[in-house]
Amino acid sequence: MTGSIEFYFDFSSPYSYFASHKVEILADKHGREVAWKPVMIGAAFKQTGALPLTETPLKGEYAKHDWQRLARFMEVPWTLPEPFPIAALAPSRAFYWLADKNPGQARLFARTAFAAYYGEGRDISSADVVADLAAPLHVERSELLAAIEEPAIKERLKRETEQAVHRGVFGAPFIFIDGEPFWGSDRMWMIDKYMETPGLFKISDT
Amino acid sequence: MTGSIEFYFDFSSPYSYFASHKVEILADKHGREVAWKPVMIGAAFKQTGALPLTETPLKGEYAKHDWQRLARFMEVPWTLPEPFPIAALAPSRAFYWLADKNPGQARLFARTAFAAYYGEGRDISSADVVADLAAPLHVERSELLAAIEEPAIKERLKRETEQAVHRGVFGAPFIFIDGEPFWGSDRMWMIDKYMETPGLFKISDT
Repeated sequence: MTGSIEFYFDFSSPYSYFASHKVEILADKHGREVAWKPVMIGAAFKQTGALPLTETPLKGEYAKHDWQRLARFMEVPWTLPEPFPIAALAPSRAFYWLADKNPGQARLFARTAFAAYYGEGRDISSADVVADLAAPLHVERSELLAAIEEPAIKERLKRETEQAVHRGVFGAPFIFIDGEPFWGSDRMWMIDKYMETPGLFKISDT
Repeated sequence: MTGSIEFYFDFSSPYSYFASHKVEILADKHGREVAWKPVMIGAAFKQTGALPLTETPLKGEYAKHDWQRLARFMEVPWTLPEPFPIAALAPSRAFYWLADKNPGQARLFARTAFAAYYGEGRDISSADVVADLAAPLHVERSELLAAIEEPAIKERLKRETEQAVHRGVFGAPFIFIDGEPFWGSDRMWMIDKYMETPGLFKISDT
């Protein structure tokens, strides 16, 4: 009962950004690690029929309002970036490339990319921007730019995404703890309770 | 700052059922009334492109699991009724007919209908079942059966639904407090905080 918190997210998901501020705090509280896993959530949307939030009638307007008030309440920087949404291939590939060498550095990069996109509105779908963001973390620019074009890294992101969808991930953020699934940044309360008392939610027949 | 909590729900929405157990408690805590407002959320789904949850790939399986664990955690009865989802015209119309005469009785009826559907799996889309459920609340069977066929009551439900969608309601439950919108049974924490400190979420430009 002490496995990692598997934190599936998409850099293009504001609710993933908000959750990223809470998930490590929650993990620390319960003595768990967080396994950060960027995915291309659009692959799941193809199955569910969902559109990006801002393109969804009614829901889009609500979401834009909700992000503003969540940021205000959580006291985290917020801007609706332009362009939005993005296909976050560059930062996601960079993440896995870094993670294979140094998971801590990869996590730091993920936070940096989130902060740049939603805090400053920088377009993190650009490989150049990603390289700029990684540079202060002692990542060689040219190495990173080459790495995210490698077939193996491209394949890695694709595989992580396919595996996520196969496990039932249909939105972001999406968290698994000991196999138990939790969707959305609003479920931190349940994740907290689950880690306190796993028996509370384990349902044998599902 | 002491207006009613406007609680939009659909009898065919399990998350509305779960929220119905919490909304009055929260209202009492803050000295507010709850204005219960059943709607046909399918009208909003036509705009957003959403499918009923159980018919949505990936999300449907998650939801079924989630309802079970929520019920277990909240210690409320739960069964996935058959048929599901339903067009809950009969109970929604009965609700508004009752509400015009006696709001307290209407609320009691709503709770009774929710309990019958999700607790016992009784098909509340049936006018006969609705009449049976209302009978112990001293509602004359024949009167109710006639009332829910009245054009004025049918129009009332249609109007409430249209008004909800016009206000941005895209899912159920959906709550407004002093005009501030909150979607989903997971947002009770934010509603609680909002009523404590309304300034926390009021954003002037939205």
